[in-house]
Amino acid sequence: NLMDLTEELHYADIAEIINELNEDEATYLIKLLDSEKTSDVLTELDEDVREAILGNLSSREIAEEIAELDTDDAADIIGELPKEIVQEVISEIDDREHARDIVDLLRYDENSAGGLMAKELVQVNENWSVTRCVKEMRAQAENVTRVHSIYVVDDSGMLKGRLSLKDLLTASTRAAIREVYIPKVDSVNVNEKPEEVAKIMSKYDLEAIPVVDELGRLVGRITIDDIVDVIREEADKDYQMAAGISQDVEADDSIWELTRARLPWLFLGLIGGVGAAAIMGGFEALISQHAILFFFTPLIAAMAGNVGVQSSAIIVQGLANNDLKGSIANRLGKEMLLATLNGIILAAVLLIFTWAWQGSFATALAISISLIVVIVVAGIIGTFIPLFLHQRGIDPAIATGPFITTSNDIFGILIYFWIAKIILGI
Amino acid sequence: NLMDLTEELHYADIAEIINELNEDEATYLIKLLDSEKTSDVLTELDEDVREAILGNLSSREIAEEIAELDTDDAADIIGELPKEIVQEVISEIDDREHARDIVDLLRYDENSAGGLMAKELVQVNENWSVTRCVKEMRAQAENVTRVHSIYVVDDSGMLKGRLSLKDLLTASTRAAIREVYIPKVDSVNVNEKPEEVAKIMSKYDLEAIPVVDELGRLVGRITIDDIVDVIREEADKDYQMAAGISQDVEADDSIWELTRARLPWLFLGLIGGVGAAAIMGGFEALISQHAILFFFTPLIAAMAGNVGVQSSAIIVQGLANNDLKGSIANRLGKEMLLATLNGIILAAVLLIFTWAWQGSFATALAISISLIVVIVVAGIIGTFIPLFLHQRGIDPAIATGPFITTSNDIFGILIYFWIAKIILGI
Ligand SMILES: [Mg+2]
Ligand SMILES: [Mg+2]
Ligand SMILES: [Mg+2]
Ligand SMILES: [Mg+2]
Ligand SMILES: [Mg+2]
Ligand SMILES: [Mg+2]
Ligand SMILES: [Mg+2]
Ligand SMILES: [Mg+2]
Ligand SMILES: [Mg+2]
Ligand SMILES: [Mg+2]
Ligand SMILES: [Mg+2]
Ligand SMILES: [Mg+2]
Ligand SMILES: [Mg+2]
Repeated sequence: NLMDLTEELHYADIAEIINELNEDEATYLIKLLDSEKTSDVLTELDEDVREAILGNLSSREIAEEIAELDTDDAADIIGELPKEIVQEVISEIDDREHARDIVDLLRYDENSAGGLMAKELVQVNENWSVTRCVKEMRAQAENVTRVHSIYVVDDSGMLKGRLSLKDLLTASTRAAIREVYIPKVDSVNVNEKPEEVAKIMSKYDLEAIPVVDELGRLVGRITIDDIVDVIREEADKDYQMAAGISQDVEADDSIWELTRARLPWLFLGLIGGVGAAAIMGGFEALISQHAILFFFTPLIAAMAGNVGVQSSAIIVQGLANNDLKGSIANRLGKEMLLATLNGIILAAVLLIFTWAWQGSFATALAISISLIVVIVVAGIIGTFIPLFLHQRGIDPAIATGPFITTSNDIFGILIYFWIAKIILGI
Repeated sequence: NLMDLTEELHYADIAEIINELNEDEATYLIKLLDSEKTSDVLTELDEDVREAILGNLSSREIAEEIAELDTDDAADIIGELPKEIVQEVISEIDDREHARDIVDLLRYDENSAGGLMAKELVQVNENWSVTRCVKEMRAQAENVTRVHSIYVVDDSGMLKGRLSLKDLLTASTRAAIREVYIPKVDSVNVNEKPEEVAKIMSKYDLEAIPVVDELGRLVGRITIDDIVDVIREEADKDYQMAAGISQDVEADDSIWELTRARLPWLFLGLIGGVGAAAIMGGFEALISQHAILFFFTPLIAAMAGNVGVQSSAIIVQGLANNDLKGSIANRLGKEMLLATLNGIILAAVLLIFTWAWQGSFATALAISISLIVVIVVAGIIGTFIPLFLHQRGIDPAIATGPFITTSNDIFGILIYFWIAKIILGI
């Protein structure tokens, strides 16, 4: 029986099943499920599936689901609803405090700590007595799945520190919280970027972190499960950018969505290739005497691209993990040294092959020396572009992949013919 | 004063500072620090820095640090020590139970749930009374930083379920645990891959998960902070593989380490380029009449590479996130459709450009049709290789990047000339 089966399953598993159903089946199943489970299932669904299902529910039904969710998930779902019905859904939420909290969260940018935090947390006033504190905590804890920490605030709501349960239990019941709390607690600003919050929580091994506003007032709390999602999504995004996929797509998206994500970067590659062809056309006079120069253009383009991607990937990752030290000049110097070293080794191998193949040492030397220069320039471009983008406040991850490959294809081939011409004295 | 400063700082921050010092300074600072802090600092250090510092400590001193650590971190540090001193360090650990737990953990492969888990957890026997349970729990909880869950085992140590603190408190003190526990708990096998553990914990939003052996006996527990590290390291590794960097290196590693990580893939690119040159040499007869064919080889190589990287990245990510459905044939069919669509659009643009540039419609058509075929083949290769590697138990992430780019360069150029020759009737 279907009911028994869904009874047994975790909501995340039910969501996976529903993601594979068509709209009618999905809506049918959601209406069939235990009301306690449906709201959690809804938060785990793919965005488009959720949109379709919610489109079949009344505002009242949506509000009932929302009422069962933590404020962060509730705000995310309401934020996705068509504008016309948001007002109606909110007015149908019976718990007015819950509704107020959700409306408050709707104001924050999704790409900030405010967009990640929930209102569910346990906070006590520094002026309360231990007795009052315990009573209030008990009431608050009812709404909070996992307490993690008890935060201490002053009369104006400023975050002052945290309370250890042990200290609370051993303190005299008439003592004020002011006398027993720990006046030190990690927190993040409500405008902090999600990636930054992730870095802090992972560095200090935190399971929850309080969020404060510009005045230092406690406004919410972020839990590690949501940060785990941030880390995974961010990694997926960077990987896709490096692979030349410009939007958040998955293997099972439609051909149309996949084309939209992939075609722009392919166009960039096409432009690069046409540029390279035009450059080679400019050197057409060399073709009768030095056809071999043309045979190595894919090699030059490939090496320029690979070196550029390698060096930019190292920089992008260093920036993401905050472990990049030293000035831009230092970075470029190091990369030049590295690229020269790699270039000489590769060029030596190529020299021997080309010499053996074509019999002309001069040509082989010209191609090999060009390769060294191309590799060094590719390394410099690969290092400089992400550092430059980062300084301008642009996500450097966009630099790795087709962007670097394409510009390095063009520069590489231009430099190659130019150097080869000089060396061959043409 | 230095002591006051380090008193204030978190151990993760102190570790960041020490990572930048030379060996003598680092050892000096470690010896200066509060003993309680040093062990945590040690776990957060870069591996090479830790190795250097531990080299300056006696076995007794190392054992004292180990004694202060949780078993998972302790086992990791002991696992890195030179073989000769492992025995000595272990014999110097005063707490014999702690030593036993560590030795037990040393047996597990670092790349498994066993290599991630700690022995610190709270477990109760299903046959105990509530009173005994509370007493034993209190003793066990002393060694556990965060309790998270209370696991229930039977007399042979098999994991049976978990205990809710609330049920425990409301149960009669004379009841047996058997009557009050929840006979359902997520767990992972000790041989499970870290990535799989990460998927499970992130899917079910868990902060800790018990680990069981082949018999179902509770042997340890993995906490989310260590899984966050797994997710970040895994993402970094995949990103580097896609960028053609073969080892776990950072921007601040030595030129030698960076060369070792980067050169192998560049060699592969060199081989690909030489292969492409050899192929073009085979078509040298065409060069006098159809020089333009040669001008577009970097474009063909770039497009084949980009399409291959795009399609393999989607597959690699789909495999990593478990959201790849359907058979290999289905996947290939979809990618062919997608590649054909993209190919036609790109070829149409190229056709117009080439026709306008060179005036020969036949040549322009030959180049454009070749481009479509190359793109389709590149898409198929990019889809097939990671699926094939995955089926063979090899990490498909290795397929994206230089591996695909290089093979697609060669195949692309071969197919291009071959098709062009047919169309031009040469
Ligand atoms: Mg419901
Ligand atoms: Mg949100
Ligand atoms: Mg950590
Ligand atoms: Mg840690
Ligand atoms: Mg949440
Ligand atoms: Mg990023
Ligand atoms: Mg390329
Ligand atoms: Mg110590
Ligand atoms: Mg380990
Ligand atoms: Mg999750
Ligand atoms: Mg969640
Ligand atoms: Mg740990
Ligand atoms: Mg992987």
